[in-house]
Amino acid sequence: MNKLLNREEFVELLNGIGKLRYHNLHPFHKLLHSGKCSKIQVQAWALNRYYYQYSIPIKDAILLSKFENSDDRRQWRGRLNDHDGDSLQIGGLQRWMILCEGIGLDKNYVQTLEGISPTTRFAVEAYINFVRNKSLLEAVASSLTEMFSPNIISERFSGMLQHYDFVDKDMLGYFIPRLYQAPNDVNFAINFVCNNATTVELQISVLKALEFKCDVLWTMCDALYYSYVSPGFKTYGMF
Amino acid sequence: MNKLLNREEFVELLNGIGKLRYHNLHPFHKLLHSGKCSKIQVQAWALNRYYYQYSIPIKDAILLSKFENSDDRRQWRGRLNDHDGDSLQIGGLQRWMILCEGIGLDKNYVQTLEGISPTTRFAVEAYINFVRNKSLLEAVASSLTEMFSPNIISERFSGMLQHYDFVDKDMLGYFIPRLYQAPNDVNFAINFVCNNATTVELQISVLKALEFKCDVLWTMCDALYYSYVSPGFKTYGMF
Repeated sequence: MNKLLNREEFVELLNGIGKLRYHNLHPFHKLLHSGKCSKIQVQAWALNRYYYQYSIPIKDAILLSKFENSDDRRQWRGRLNDHDGDSLQIGGLQRWMILCEGIGLDKNYVQTLEGISPTTRFAVEAYINFVRNKSLLEAVASSLTEMFSPNIISERFSGMLQHYDFVDKDMLGYFIPRLYQAPNDVNFAINFVCNNATTVELQISVLKALEFKCDVLWTMCDALYYSYVSPGFKTYGMF
Repeated sequence: MNKLLNREEFVELLNGIGKLRYHNLHPFHKLLHSGKCSKIQVQAWALNRYYYQYSIPIKDAILLSKFENSDDRRQWRGRLNDHDGDSLQIGGLQRWMILCEGIGLDKNYVQTLEGISPTTRFAVEAYINFVRNKSLLEAVASSLTEMFSPNIISERFSGMLQHYDFVDKDMLGYFIPRLYQAPNDVNFAINFVCNNATTVELQISVLKALEFKCDVLWTMCDALYYSYVSPGFKTYGMF
């Protein structure tokens, strides 16, 4: 890439990354959504993903601290409201716990964060450190996997509901608000990266940040596959 | 200090730090509140303090990222609402700008952050770095100067209104919500430090954090006195 792309070209490249690398393509998710996971595998997925959900508001607070004006912070603060809840509704983290409990995990066990795969832990912490240590532009860019999330959510919602008798609609309450929250968040983030990636180097840094984030999500699926599908190896203490 | 204090003794020590070291005692504030500052000195105060206000939501977002549960984050998030505003009211940073403009500073000039004393800058940045690098307990403890702020606010509000014909009530709008925001924030922070400082060492770390924060505020007054009262020396570019 040696010339500055216009907005349309740039957004097309961002979308292209999703088409190649977003975790909806991962074999684990294909199993999960098509009803081929055992209950234990679904539990392992929900438990490990809990650590990601747990870390997202921490990541967002770090990211928020990098903005230098009230308008941007106010906009990003909405993500904290979504994850931690507000006076009107419970947050995403609590909704995720409803899913965990619904499929038979013990709340206290989940909250201890014991049982999480070390690979999940390292991947999620790599994400937090990326946001902490990289530029604001790269940090915002790393959130852009949400461009691709409405598809996986609708696929997951209908697939899990159809295929698992131990899953019901109330347990999947996490995903409903995400269907309107994510596009709103994405809208701001895309505008931000398009407006601020004003050189070829900055555009490349945005693309790399999105690839990195795809790797984070993909690696979390690798960990699930490796330990719960094949070959099924776990480290001491894992669920 | 070689024994763990009970809550009452501990809070008394915290209050004692305020009585000795809070910046209401600083000679610059005595001038400011008693009408002995020139308009330029009042402008210098508002301009330098703007950098503090500008940095507070950044500090609070960093601090928020250190909490590990939604309830605490939700509570601390109220500070971001207070400083950056929400759908119901404008934030403290914008209110501070109203004061700056009211007393004759140019908004764009203030926002460039040029003209700020390097000493102010270093002090404020020391505060941000403290919150970033120290424990959550110490970070929360460093917010406890707000225990002492209602007094200085009422003294400042009435003193400035009485003594400066270029100041009116609308310009001081920043301080009104602080009168109810600060005690609410303090309440949470005091409970947090009392509940979490469970050893002598931790109690000492809390006391030191509060002393540190008093030093930050005090140093900002030193900078104003040195450059705008006596001896009146400034570095290049300062207001």
